[in-house]
Parts: sequence; structure tokens; C-alpha cells
Amino acid sequence: MGKKLVFGHKNPDTDALSAAVAMAYYLERIGEEAEAVALGKANDESKFAFDYFKVSLPRIVSSVADEVEEVVLVDHNEPIQSVDDLDQVTVIQVVDHHRIFGFNTGQPLYYRAEPIGSTSSVLYKMFQEKDIDIPQAIAGLMLSAIISDTLLLKSPTCTKEDIDIANELAKIAEVNLNEYGLELLKAGTNIASQSEDQILNGDAKNFEMDDQKIRVGQVNIIGFDEILDRKAALLAEMEKAVAQDDLSLFLFVATDVLDSNSIGLVAGNKASLAEKAFKQSLKEQQIDLPGVVSRKKQIIPPLTEAFTEE
Amino acid sequence: MGKKLVFGHKNPDTDALSAAVAMAYYLERIGEEAEAVALGKANDESKFAFDYFKVSLPRIVSSVADEVEEVVLVDHNEPIQSVDDLDQVTVIQVVDHHRIFGFNTGQPLYYRAEPIGSTSSVLYKMFQEKDIDIPQAIAGLMLSAIISDTLLLKSPTCTKEDIDIANELAKIAEVNLNEYGLELLKAGTNIASQSEDQILNGDAKNFEMDDQKIRVGQVNIIGFDEILDRKAALLAEMEKAVAQDDLSLFLFVATDVLDSNSIGLVAGNKASLAEKAFKQSLKEQQIDLPGVVSRKKQIIPPLTEAFTEE
Repeated sequence: MGKKLVFGHKNPDTDALSAAVAMAYYLERIGEEAEAVALGKANDESKFAFDYFKVSLPRIVSSVADEVEEVVLVDHNEPIQSVDDLDQVTVIQVVDHHRIFGFNTGQPLYYRAEPIGSTSSVLYKMFQEKDIDIPQAIAGLMLSAIISDTLLLKSPTCTKEDIDIANELAKIAEVNLNEYGLELLKAGTNIASQSEDQILNGDAKNFEMDDQKIRVGQVNIIGFDEILDRKAALLAEMEKAVAQDDLSLFLFVATDVLDSNSIGLVAGNKASLAEKAFKQSLKEQQIDLPGVVSRKKQIIPPLTEAFTEE
Repeated sequence: MGKKLVFGHKNPDTDALSAAVAMAYYLERIGEEAEAVALGKANDESKFAFDYFKVSLPRIVSSVADEVEEVVLVDHNEPIQSVDDLDQVTVIQVVDHHRIFGFNTGQPLYYRAEPIGSTSSVLYKMFQEKDIDIPQAIAGLMLSAIISDTLLLKSPTCTKEDIDIANELAKIAEVNLNEYGLELLKAGTNIASQSEDQILNGDAKNFEMDDQKIRVGQVNIIGFDEILDRKAALLAEMEKAVAQDDLSLFLFVATDVLDSNSIGLVAGNKASLAEKAFKQSLKEQQIDLPGVVSRKKQIIPPLTEAFTEE
């Protein structure tokens, strides 16, 4: 068997990129030929992390079947979030921390998922189990992934294991967890230089609910002023995406990383289901999401319920 | 969170039953409340193993939602092979060694699968990773599961890891691997006292291929005489099942455990796809399957290909 490409989901976040790099390293260490690649451009937060630990960002690919026969998925499994030609290759391994949805294989494979804060935390356990040392730079990326996915260990997805692992990784990476963590999160909140399209889609994921197409984007910020100043332009861009991509719902969530609080902008003909899901009323396509920070744990499950109960 | 029920697939084999018992023990050891149950009667081989190691067979259930909210699946994930009311409970953990198919969740979960010889081998690694001692009787059941699934380490699904694990488990269980293994396999080959329905369905699994319903049964025997003597009666029973359950194909495989060789009986209007899948011609609804012993590795993949390419 030849080289494997390892990649996270489209619109990669820090966990998708870091877990790909860490997993490729892990595979090389157990004797496989592997290369980390990315399904899109890195965001500012990820750029900060890769720059800080002096690691090159994975090269970006839009297809994989022209290069390899076998691939390894990290930080996702839903085909709708993966490379477009996924059905042309064999997925031989998955490491993830999301629900399993629409993922079917013809053959047995390695699948390792745990309901914890980040894929990088699962990978840390795999390194431990095989007694493989984690180099400083890769530890730094894995730590960045945990900080990013758990908003510096404050998200409801964060477990005791994530906290312990983050502390271990901070030692290996030789950084102060809190200081580095705040720097990293702040690096991801600069939206002034971004277009509405970049803000909306930088971290957007598609989901299928009750056979309808849903998009949920999320951006980290400090305070909501910048988002509210650009609300009309953001909504106009969202309406365009709804029409173009036949979305039943586009929910864009802005999360205050210091305050652990969110607001949402909503478009699509099923916008009312957001009201039902979050038990909040929609005012001028805007909804309060008090205490909500996790798409995986606090947004997708109630939305799924609202769509399937409809 | 209350008690979890742990179970393998319908028509349980030795791995489905042993892995459920071993997983329930593992969960109890890490502080969870868990009980192993079974989705059907044990076959003669499994009865031999449980009797040999003096372990009670798990009680049989036909539904779970009346008892618990959360379940743990071992040795399967396809809902079509699982308990009928699976959609009424939450699957919080899966340990398996099969392909993933039709398995969707709303929430993140523990999922541990590896492409190795038995679920019990995966469990052995989980015990090791958490430094949990395996009691003699449970080691004996896990060993029996590996022997059963790999036909005493001879199936193409058997890996170096399975062989090493089987040897370790034989030491803990205090049995001679080869002697005990042959005894166990022979215990499963006694079909004289079984009805045609019992022979056909004792180990049958349903699959969906290209939206059609397929059933593949398998029986272990020594020599093919007993099967060929009862061929007409077996085929009559198969035709009945095809009509009753709307099957496109019913393939019944008899595997000589000493000779690692199989023959198949075939019914259903897509019988010709078995010819295509195995590149053998069908004579009076019978097909040679030289060297075939593994449903997972040598039967399901070519059948799936034949159905999807059709």
C-alpha cells in the first residue's frame, strides 16, 4: 500500500489542521507513509498557531483520488464535510470526536472516536498507548487545537481528560497554557480585514437534517459590535448563499470568546425552526444564544431535533 | 446515567456473546453499571465455550428501550443486524471489527473499530491500555471468540495481532490453544440435531446492497456430505425465506473448518450475481467457493461490488 493522505474537514479549523499533521506524524512513526493535507485555507487563528510553532501549513488539495488510493480522515466523518471525491478512494482510518453520520464503508477499518473536546485529545491518547514521544512543535499544534475547540477549556464539550491533556501538552510545548491560549483565541477574532463571505464561510459546516440542507457557520469575536455593525451586509450574503446552495437554513453564530456567549443571524425558509430549537424568539433575523459556544453540543443536537420533529 | 445494556448482533456467534460479557466487565471495572445481554439463542459452539469456562450465558432480550436509555454495541454496528428498537435508545459506545454501514448518531460517542480478526481482540487491547486484568473465565471466552471468528487463526481476517493476543489469552485461560481450539470448532459443527431453519438462520446476517435486501448465512461443518444430503430441504426453506422476507438473494455458505473451504447454496431472483461475485458458475443452485472462509472479507465485499455494479 502506498502513501496515505491525511486531512480534516472543509473550511479547516485549528483542530482539523493540527490533527492532520499530528496523525501523519503518528502514522510515519508506526511505519506508514503519510502526508497531511488541507481541504481549504487556514484561518487567522490556525495561521497564528502554525507560525508560533514554526510548522508549515499543510498544502491545500481539492481532490485526492488523483494522488492516492487510501486516505485517513481526522476531525470529521460526514462525507458532506469531506473532500469531493471521497467516494473514489478508500477510507482506512478515522480519528474523530463528532457524531457519525452518513459514513459508510465497504470494508472494516480503524475508527477511533471519543466524545471529548478535540480530535487532538484522542490523538494524544493514541500516542500514549503506543509510547510515541510527541515533538515540541506537534505538541504545540495539538494544544492549540484543544484550546481552539474548547475555547480555552471553557466549552461544555471540554472534559477532565482534555484539561489534563492540555496541561501535559503545554509542558511539552513549553508555553504557559493560559497566556498562550488567550493570544491564540484573540488571533482568531480579527474580522475587520475579512469580507462578509470570509466571515460567514471561514468555519461553516453543512449538515443534512430530515433530507434538508443546513449550513451552520461560527466566528469567534470579542464583543458583538463588529458583527452588529455589519449585520445587513452579512444577512444579504447569507440570503445569497441560501438561494444559490438551496439551503433550508443558514445559521451564523458569533461567539464572544471572553464572555462564552453567542448571538445568531438566521436566513432560509426554515428560520422559524431556530426559534424552536433554541427557545428564543427571532427579531429581525437575529437570535440570542445565551451560554452557547459549542456547535457540536449546543447547536446541532437541538436543530436536528427541531427538524426531525417538524 | 443509569445501567447500560451491552450486546452483539442478532443470531449471536461466539464473538458477539463473549465480547458483550467482556465489555460489560470492562465497563464495570471503569465504574459504569453494565449488563451483557444477547439478541438470540447461543449456538452449540458458544454453549461449549460458556460451559467450558463456567460462565452463564447472557439473558436474551428482544427489546431494550423498556429497560435502559443507553446501550453499548459490540461486534456490529449496522442497525439491520441490531435490536429492533435501537432507534429508541442512545448508542454511547461501539466496539467492532466490521465495516460501518447505516450507522448514524445524533451525538458524539465512543467508537473503537479495527480491521482485525475479532471484536474480542480489540477489547483485549482496551483492557491492556487501561491496565485492567482479565479474569481466567473471561480470557477463555475472548480466546474462544478469536478462535471462532478466525477458524483457529486460519481465516484471511486473522492478523499477527490476533495470533499474539490468542496466545496471551490461552495462557491466562490455562488451555492449550490448538487442542481447545479444535474442540471448540468441532462443537459447532454438529448439525444432525438441527432443523433446516436452525441451520440456515443460526448465523445469518442481513445486508442492504443497492437498496436490496440480502441474507448471508454460514455454518461450520466437517466435510460437505451432511449439507449435500439435506440440500433439497435446505433450498426449499431458503425459497420460503426469500418470499417471506422479500430477499433479492439468500446465500447460505457451508464452511469446512478443517479444510478451510466452502460451498454455497443460492436462492432469490438475483442468484446470478453470486456467479458474478465469486466468478464461479451456479449448478443446481449450488456454487463452489474454494478457499472462502470469511463472510466479512471474502463474501460481502465481492457481493456488494456485484450488486452496485449491476
